Amino acid sequence: MDTDALVDAVRDGELRLHELEAHADADTAAAARRRIVADAADTSLETVGEYAFPADDAEPNIENMVGAAQVPMGVVGPLAVDGDAIDGEPYLPLATTEGALVASVNRGCASMTAAGGATARVLKNAMTRAPVFRVAGVAEASETAAWVRDNVESLASAAEATTSHGELRDVTPYVVGDNVFLRFAYDTKDAMGMNMATIATEAACEVVEAETPAELVALSGNLCSDKKPAAVNSVEGRGRTVAADVVLPGSVVEEYFGTTPAAIAEANTRKNLVGSAKAGSLGFNAHAANTVAAAFLATGQDIAQVVEGANAITTADVRDGDLYASLTLASLEVGTVGGGTKLPTQAEALDVVGVRGGGDPAGSNADALAEAIATAALGGELSLLGALASNHLASAHEELGR
Amino acid sequence: MDTDALVDAVRDGELRLHELEAHADADTAAAARRRIVADAADTSLETVGEYAFPADDAEPNIENMVGAAQVPMGVVGPLAVDGDAIDGEPYLPLATTEGALVASVNRGCASMTAAGGATARVLKNAMTRAPVFRVAGVAEASETAAWVRDNVESLASAAEATTSHGELRDVTPYVVGDNVFLRFAYDTKDAMGMNMATIATEAACEVVEAETPAELVALSGNLCSDKKPAAVNSVEGRGRTVAADVVLPGSVVEEYFGTTPAAIAEANTRKNLVGSAKAGSLGFNAHAANTVAAAFLATGQDIAQVVEGANAITTADVRDGDLYASLTLASLEVGTVGGGTKLPTQAEALDVVGVRGGGDPAGSNADALAEAIATAALGGELSLLGALASNHLASAHEELGR
Amino acid sequence: MDTDALVDAVRDGELRLHELEAHADADTAAAARRRIVADAADTSLETVGEYAFPADDAEPNIENMVGAAQVPMGVVGPLAVDGDAIDGEPYLPLATTEGALVASVNRGCASMTAAGGATARVLKNAMTRAPVFRVAGVAEASETAAWVRDNVESLASAAEATTSHGELRDVTPYVVGDNVFLRFAYDTKDAMGMNMATIATEAACEVVEAETPAELVALSGNLCSDKKPAAVNSVEGRGRTVAADVVLPGSVVEEYFGTTPAAIAEANTRKNLVGSAKAGSLGFNAHAANTVAAAFLATGQDIAQVVEGANAITTADVRDGDLYASLTLASLEVGTVGGGTKLPTQAEALDVVGVRGGGDPAGSNADALAEAIATAALGGELSLLGALASNHLASAHEELGR
Amino acid sequence: MDTDALVDAVRDGELRLHELEAHADADTAAAARRRIVADAADTSLETVGEYAFPADDAEPNIENMVGAAQVPMGVVGPLAVDGDAIDGEPYLPLATTEGALVASVNRGCASMTAAGGATARVLKNAMTRAPVFRVAGVAEASETAAWVRDNVESLASAAEATTSHGELRDVTPYVVGDNVFLRFAYDTKDAMGMNMATIATEAACEVVEAETPAELVALSGNLCSDKKPAAVNSVEGRGRTVAADVVLPGSVVEEYFGTTPAAIAEANTRKNLVGSAKAGSLGFNAHAANTVAAAFLATGQDIAQVVEGANAITTADVRDGDLYASLTLASLEVGTVGGGTKLPTQAEALDVVGVRGGGDPAGSNADALAEAIATAALGGELSLLGALASNHLASAHEELGR
Repeated sequence: MDTDALVDAVRDGELRLHELEAHADADTAAAARRRIVADAADTSLETVGEYAFPADDAEPNIENMVGAAQVPMGVVGPLAVDGDAIDGEPYLPLATTEGALVASVNRGCASMTAAGGATARVLKNAMTRAPVFRVAGVAEASETAAWVRDNVESLASAAEATTSHGELRDVTPYVVGDNVFLRFAYDTKDAMGMNMATIATEAACEVVEAETPAELVALSGNLCSDKKPAAVNSVEGRGRTVAADVVLPGSVVEEYFGTTPAAIAEANTRKNLVGSAKAGSLGFNAHAANTVAAAFLATGQDIAQVVEGANAITTADVRDGDLYASLTLASLEVGTVGGGTKLPTQAEALDVVGVRGGGDPAGSNADALAEAIATAALGGELSLLGALASNHLASAHEELGR
Repeated sequence: MDTDALVDAVRDGELRLHELEAHADADTAAAARRRIVADAADTSLETVGEYAFPADDAEPNIENMVGAAQVPMGVVGPLAVDGDAIDGEPYLPLATTEGALVASVNRGCASMTAAGGATARVLKNAMTRAPVFRVAGVAEASETAAWVRDNVESLASAAEATTSHGELRDVTPYVVGDNVFLRFAYDTKDAMGMNMATIATEAACEVVEAETPAELVALSGNLCSDKKPAAVNSVEGRGRTVAADVVLPGSVVEEYFGTTPAAIAEANTRKNLVGSAKAGSLGFNAHAANTVAAAFLATGQDIAQVVEGANAITTADVRDGDLYASLTLASLEVGTVGGGTKLPTQAEALDVVGVRGGGDPAGSNADALAEAIATAALGGELSLLGALASNHLASAHEELGR
Repeated sequence: MDTDALVDAVRDGELRLHELEAHADADTAAAARRRIVADAADTSLETVGEYAFPADDAEPNIENMVGAAQVPMGVVGPLAVDGDAIDGEPYLPLATTEGALVASVNRGCASMTAAGGATARVLKNAMTRAPVFRVAGVAEASETAAWVRDNVESLASAAEATTSHGELRDVTPYVVGDNVFLRFAYDTKDAMGMNMATIATEAACEVVEAETPAELVALSGNLCSDKKPAAVNSVEGRGRTVAADVVLPGSVVEEYFGTTPAAIAEANTRKNLVGSAKAGSLGFNAHAANTVAAAFLATGQDIAQVVEGANAITTADVRDGDLYASLTLASLEVGTVGGGTKLPTQAEALDVVGVRGGGDPAGSNADALAEAIATAALGGELSLLGALASNHLASAHEELGR
Repeated sequence: MDTDALVDAVRDGELRLHELEAHADADTAAAARRRIVADAADTSLETVGEYAFPADDAEPNIENMVGAAQVPMGVVGPLAVDGDAIDGEPYLPLATTEGALVASVNRGCASMTAAGGATARVLKNAMTRAPVFRVAGVAEASETAAWVRDNVESLASAAEATTSHGELRDVTPYVVGDNVFLRFAYDTKDAMGMNMATIATEAACEVVEAETPAELVALSGNLCSDKKPAAVNSVEGRGRTVAADVVLPGSVVEEYFGTTPAAIAEANTRKNLVGSAKAGSLGFNAHAANTVAAAFLATGQDIAQVVEGANAITTADVRDGDLYASLTLASLEVGTVGGGTKLPTQAEALDVVGVRGGGDPAGSNADALAEAIATAALGGELSLLGALASNHLASAHEELGR
């Protein structure tokens, strides 16, 4: 069917809006859907329809497609960073609608380059999934938890049979009354790994149900915790736990931010540590989520996981007159295969970082992406702290002789 | 200069990457930048360059532009919802790379339509900015806080002089030792309002500095709290606090999800309430961030604010054999003017909802968008809970006679 | 009946353990109960029975009385503190079983005296009670919240009719789906005020139920929040929000702690700020709960409210070579009338501080007690930080030239 | 010296208040101190001086002793509970100043006895101490964490050399910038174990400092987390993680609480789950801290650790017309040796429960005490929920046919 026929069929009630792809190619279906949706609101979706790839290519990523959202993409870098996985000094694409963000992050990155570069390390790597089981009560819960602690190997066998790459690293049981939560932690290599972890955990759950009295209630019991702000992630990590740091000489701080290491350290303590403490926060940073979100969007990550990406702590201290600054992201969930990474603009962005597809060794591309994002986000922290400090603190510090 | 000339100038060190727009139009600058960045990684940015709008139009939103990220956009709806601000039964565009998300949300929305529609209300509206001041100690802090409580009017005068739309609603002082935080709360009408609030607060801070011993350290002291997971937002709200709910007859639950109200209620309690409690979470929901992120991306919102969008509580209870379900988002920060809302695909998406630009009365478009997102996100909650429950709970419930 | 008769009656099933006071004086009842309970465990309760007051006097405070727990009481002070309410330089009694605690707190207090004294201020005073109501859904919730905002005066009338001292300061509505929580905040003067707030709120709830569709489910809906670690208290305060601070010259830090202001500041940042941040904590202090608990026990406060007393932030910074340190307790719930304050040892302890009974003006005694506890707890913070820093930091700092 | 001589010596400045025990026996010293302190406030400490044990016995527990605080002690029970460690059906002493608390807890316990008894289990046992180390930056932090993961055995050797009972179970590294936190977890058997863990950890820290570049900053880095409300404890546990549950037939609910299982379940969901969620809480219970505090005070526990004792989740659901209720305490820190357990009234209270001193096997007495407290606290939860529900819910439920 052509576009007109599809539109008529929907209007006549013969087809439902999500059934069009069964009767036409994906681009035609999207065109028809655009017309129907736009007409309903008496508007047009012309630009939404000007996407730069065959709609077929987006089939694994979307339903009821009408086109594409286009978000401006800029770049920061080159990133001078000593990492375990990152190679060379790549640019990092950032897609955002927040004016000044790219410039701000870039200024911070430039200051780090001027200081000889940052350092970044992936400290932990574990994608988690935590199903919840129903048991009769605390006695059964205790038995089930004990059984799990004694049988991690057999759970690993079941879980790993479902995946060619993933490895089960740990299973931690948590009990609340007649609920047993099992937090499965996987090394999912270059995949962000949520699907891999879910499928593997489902297989392991069958073993738990067969061997214990526990009955599965939900494959995710929110102790994972996916796309929710949760202390379990900021304490224990999820995806990559990754940190970046740098020592900026006082002269660099002056040149790039027009302020002093002491002023930046004070702003960080009052705002990022004390202010966040008072706010009951899990995010002790200035705006790490901005860089994470923009990098996630550019490189095809799951942008709902910006939530966990905000679980980050920024520190800033004066060291012998220089500024030591660090950013530690507890739960940065990234991948270079699967999900949105195959989409054309996203794949190109990953190529810019040099991390498209599976790494060698497996996992190294996702590690490198994590290091790049952490480095850029540290740049963003420095830049915002510098801006805050230069407006108001420098003169005060001089006056006060601090 | 043309593209080649720009590229050469950068390579010769005559221009820096962010200076190109001074020497060429925005599209040429982006093309040159694409070539430089892509060459550095030995790749291409061809699709990134195929954006569907003049680069000039994106200038307020990006620096160092190389092109655009394109994310597939689908639609859910029509949304049957009784709201205070929302008009008719609009479709809601969602942009995402997560396969099955749009279908899942749509299934949930369809179930609500079958049940006669949802209800949605904006419960609170307050964009906040909380600068941190330095004082000599707790004595001065106490005096400063007292002065602020007594002089909200004069702070409002200063703040509101900077804006034609915004209204200062409240200023709450918080003290920690020699830090005074003032949380300014504004009605920013149809703007998300972060910039408006920042500018207005800066003006008010000058009054505070003039009239009290307090010295401004940072315009944001993290009690705002912007783009960080923070209890202050989940308790007190930020942007729109908005809720949606629905009563699904048991027959609708069976038809759409193949399970029972009791099974969904049990999954919700064990996962969203008890599991999140154990996780130390601020998000007591299944995946509200997914819908929020996809709607934010489609409609030009700030996607880093998905962080606060995840501060949401889902409830599900059996009522006389039917399912009552609700989703309350404490801090959904949305706008229909400013930010990314003017970009072409995003503006078209807003038109689909019927909320592009300023509303009449002012604020009603942003309210309507908040109601639409809350409704769709409730649909997403129902759909995921239904999927979890149908796999495992229905049979168990029958067996157990619950 | 005498002791033997009571014991026989219980053993014969004629009386239940809690019914003894109806048949004998309180001391005889307690003696009989001691014998029954001790015999059941084949032990004795001899010392428990050697309490120093007529059992009758404890009737408002205990049921099933067998005697008294005796906890060693020491003193710290005199406390040199400039407060709004505290008078002179009182000693503060502390009851504890933790060896070294009193000595440690006292050392810190001595250092503050040597520095010319601390400063303390009560920043806020509000005892809260937050009932939860059931409504039909978010539409009714929105209406109910709006009604409450418009009718605080009539709620105040109802609430204040139940109390001669209490004043309703504010009512804040919070909505989650079909739940409406109303957080009532009272000035309860010299009473800790939980009972006063509960009774007053119950009266106000009747008005809410009469005037709106809301039905009361529970007089406490946990947004109060009483005896639970909750962000709402650490952000908004409960009972007294009170802070104390001091500037310790470097020479005093050296004399009392054998270390430097820089070393103490570093320990505070790494442990109390960064460590607590990583722990997902609401308590950014070293051991404030120790001093709070010991003072609560000595002065007849509710020791379960030590929970909220731990919502405290300690800051420590170098100022011109000296140490600025502060402790801000967000939710210190204290009273000098009611509860355990009338018991003999507790009343004597309050007399030591000079705050027994109602103050003039009303509330000033509880304010003074809050200031005294905050000051002593700051002493405890300094002492522990000093001990940590002197063991390991001083030499390191010298070596590193920081 | 006699009392008069001591008093004169202090007044003449020859002795300081804490030096008296060097010149007289402990009782005389306390008497002199009482006179000095009481005279300073123009009052008396007569009852404080009537303690029922030689002051010498309290020397490990107090400094600057003036006497004892006396808190009324009652009992609840006998506790009908199926536990792993608890023996028979003991009474549990509770010391409190909150009238009605003992009666309320006892009512709940009686309802459980009527239902055939509760069940309790210790689910985890780990006393933790988490020192913080300074490293040069994230590279060194990464190396240090890796070294620790590879050398737990050698850390265990060092740690366990300091203790005859304690066993190191695990060491978990956490990194934030240039801070490395190592959370050491011990089985401390019948001791609460804070001192044991601290001493053992200090020895292990020497190994870390010798083998890695890390320098110890503070033996406690607040990831322990001791006496602070912290998610790390509510997620991972500290001391005993212990749960109790019960199924109360509808008839028992009616008889003891005059309400229905459905009404109690509703109150629990709205208050303890949804209300606490909205409050940003780590405590999803009604008043567990009350029972914990009263039992801690009676049995010589560290009452500042009531803070962690409040990290508890209560669940309540209808099962086939009956009420299933559970209470899970994540971090109940108890011991039956050391600390305040040797004091006379406290030791007698432990004897009532049958758990004084070391258990056989080691740890079983502390386990039994944990089970007893969890059971009683569950009784307290039932009683308060029942009271809330009976006031308002029963009739509503009937009317609404829920």
